[in-house]
Amino acid sequence: MDSIKIGMIGFGTVGAGVVNLLEESGSALADRIGRKLVLEKIAVRDTGKKRGAPFDRARLTTDPRQIVESPDIDIVIEVMGGEEEALSLTLQAIKNGKHLVTANKLMLALRGEEVYQAAESAGVELGFEAAVAGAIPVIRTIRHSFASDRIALVQGIVNGTGNYILSRMTDEGKPFDDILKDAQALGYAEADPALDVGGGDSAHKIAILASLAFRTPVDFKDVYTEGITAITPEDIIMAGEFGYRVKLLALARRNHDSIDVRVHPAMVPKNHMIANVNGALNAVEIVGDYAGPNILQGPGAGAGPTASAVVADIVDIGGKIVYGGAGKVSPIGIPLSSRKKIPVAPVDQVSSEYYLRFTVPDRPGVLAEISGALGRNKISISSMIQRGRKENEPVSVVLMTHIALESDLNRALDEIARTDICQADTMRVRIAKDA
Amino acid sequence: MDSIKIGMIGFGTVGAGVVNLLEESGSALADRIGRKLVLEKIAVRDTGKKRGAPFDRARLTTDPRQIVESPDIDIVIEVMGGEEEALSLTLQAIKNGKHLVTANKLMLALRGEEVYQAAESAGVELGFEAAVAGAIPVIRTIRHSFASDRIALVQGIVNGTGNYILSRMTDEGKPFDDILKDAQALGYAEADPALDVGGGDSAHKIAILASLAFRTPVDFKDVYTEGITAITPEDIIMAGEFGYRVKLLALARRNHDSIDVRVHPAMVPKNHMIANVNGALNAVEIVGDYAGPNILQGPGAGAGPTASAVVADIVDIGGKIVYGGAGKVSPIGIPLSSRKKIPVAPVDQVSSEYYLRFTVPDRPGVLAEISGALGRNKISISSMIQRGRKENEPVSVVLMTHIALESDLNRALDEIARTDICQADTMRVRIAKDA
Repeated sequence: MDSIKIGMIGFGTVGAGVVNLLEESGSALADRIGRKLVLEKIAVRDTGKKRGAPFDRARLTTDPRQIVESPDIDIVIEVMGGEEEALSLTLQAIKNGKHLVTANKLMLALRGEEVYQAAESAGVELGFEAAVAGAIPVIRTIRHSFASDRIALVQGIVNGTGNYILSRMTDEGKPFDDILKDAQALGYAEADPALDVGGGDSAHKIAILASLAFRTPVDFKDVYTEGITAITPEDIIMAGEFGYRVKLLALARRNHDSIDVRVHPAMVPKNHMIANVNGALNAVEIVGDYAGPNILQGPGAGAGPTASAVVADIVDIGGKIVYGGAGKVSPIGIPLSSRKKIPVAPVDQVSSEYYLRFTVPDRPGVLAEISGALGRNKISISSMIQRGRKENEPVSVVLMTHIALESDLNRALDEIARTDICQADTMRVRIAKDA
Repeated sequence: MDSIKIGMIGFGTVGAGVVNLLEESGSALADRIGRKLVLEKIAVRDTGKKRGAPFDRARLTTDPRQIVESPDIDIVIEVMGGEEEALSLTLQAIKNGKHLVTANKLMLALRGEEVYQAAESAGVELGFEAAVAGAIPVIRTIRHSFASDRIALVQGIVNGTGNYILSRMTDEGKPFDDILKDAQALGYAEADPALDVGGGDSAHKIAILASLAFRTPVDFKDVYTEGITAITPEDIIMAGEFGYRVKLLALARRNHDSIDVRVHPAMVPKNHMIANVNGALNAVEIVGDYAGPNILQGPGAGAGPTASAVVADIVDIGGKIVYGGAGKVSPIGIPLSSRKKIPVAPVDQVSSEYYLRFTVPDRPGVLAEISGALGRNKISISSMIQRGRKENEPVSVVLMTHIALESDLNRALDEIARTDICQADTMRVRIAKDA
């Protein structure tokens, strides 16, 4: 039996998963494809380092060019991560006619257009299911299952660490910092959690999904990104009383002549499926004009799921190599030149209901000042709660608004901030009504 | 631009959805595929009947052979339903080299092997995403996304009518017959609801999924099928007290050297996602050794979702026609000859925890008789509830068992039935622990 030769750049957690999966299922996959899959070479920084999977040390190299320039390699797996070096190796591999499978969401979010263009020009396959939400088939569903449909909305939870922290804050009532420390100790959060809890990782993923769903280039700088670090247990409790759960929501919506692409904490109605996705799970809702709302849920990260997605892409590409179909269709499903650039709407043009928590002195007149400023800016209040009265200490006043334009709300909050009645930053959380 | 010519057999709800979707999105789809999709002809029984979508009456025909035998037609859509006639037309179309897209679950469940073999021999594409759960990408996920993985379990809710009825019984506490009548009046259940509430429709779907997931022919006669007609409001209330919801579960599980494929009511733990899928929604969980548990949820039926799935298959096939890839891979993803026949385990070899409700006279000694019979057959009881005491009227005794083998339970229940202490049929519901 002929073989399909694979080179891999990077041998971390995901790389080890790929080695194990290919080892375990190699013969079944060969039956399926009609050729053996042979992992020829892996490029690593340190050939002496202990790895999570057995691999012949003689086939490790510290020089990734031995992979991207080797005439023997058919498919390159890029699981090294990062931007510049990964991009440069990816583009080189593609230029050399190699099919590429990548789990690198950062690279695709920031430099995806260069990669897509290169793959289309070279006529090679590009598999990137593993870049978003592990083995949850989000990319394939948007690219193939919804190819017939017009997608109206893609939204969900695409960062397991953030969801794990919010879920535990909800269950245990403890502050963000405490849960983060514990999550780091347990291995659920990284030593530098900024990308996860700051929303950047979610933003990478939703930028990729938006581009694919709405068939447009998306400039990553246009993706509004707000993390969960400012969320307090009090916000979570108040959300619960109003019938919501707080989630780090990534959202891409089709408007009339623009799209929304953003990541921020949101209060999701408790009876919505996404509100009930807890722990480190991910879930993505894809709404088609015809297909209606479909939700895909699963682990979203980790060696096993991500390796499963990487190898599924390899199986697809392998099959196409065998029958001569590889690289015949552009990596995003349609010719790149047929796309139109759809602008991303600025976040202050978004309309939403809002949860607002003001920290103010407990004295008469405060609510009048706040509601006056809101009213002058066309924000109307749907309900108000003030809990507890502590003498000489600031209290929380929580307001829920009706639908309002974010720029109006910003003006109102600026006005309130100038009055100096607020004794701490005002918290604002968007309500995800159609989540 | 060249065109791809499509013929459709059947013009009911789904057919009308397809006509509307092709009409609305035709030019976008042409951009994607590189050729126009032209719906040439539709075969119907009655050309005079009013349809749910506009279509040139001159291109209707009452003779489906004008489609399956026309040299002009590239792709045939079969949405007429039923077994023999649909099969005969399908096989004829395939024999004539036409690619086939079908939403016919009954045909594929009962005669799928004939269709798969014919498509593989003729080298044509077979699309059947629409046959299971509407636009929820279950088929594509099993066939492509999990191609790299070993699937351990596929389970879920694949019949919207059954789920709608159970959900309303749960919410309203009313008996099955009342809710069914109301569901029929509202159009949620058909005049003849047997396939839906009897489990047959779910059995068709899980037979197709099991065959695909475990790469084996499945004899439909081996699929154990039990409907929801015997479920009472009392069973639902008791399930709730024990922490479960009653769902009509379709399940396909890989065992050591057999598979389970069955449909029956099950008590699903309340905190499992599937327990929270309510109304007419469908949800399917696919568990891979590497990918872990992934759940796909959506509408599962209706004109829009089903048409979206049909047309997604057409787009896939259209793309392959354009670049010459059509029919190169067997319709189930691997050569049919590479499969092994895996036997379906008889349901009495299944082990499960059970909910049992006995209708017995309220007198001393009854529980001793029941628990004695259970104990003699190796069934141990985990908890017992008897509610209400009515003089001279039978009462319900509800038992939950530990894990037991179904054949042991059957023996115990036979023994109890022979004692004539039961004044009505004993209700038995399996507990879905890993749902």
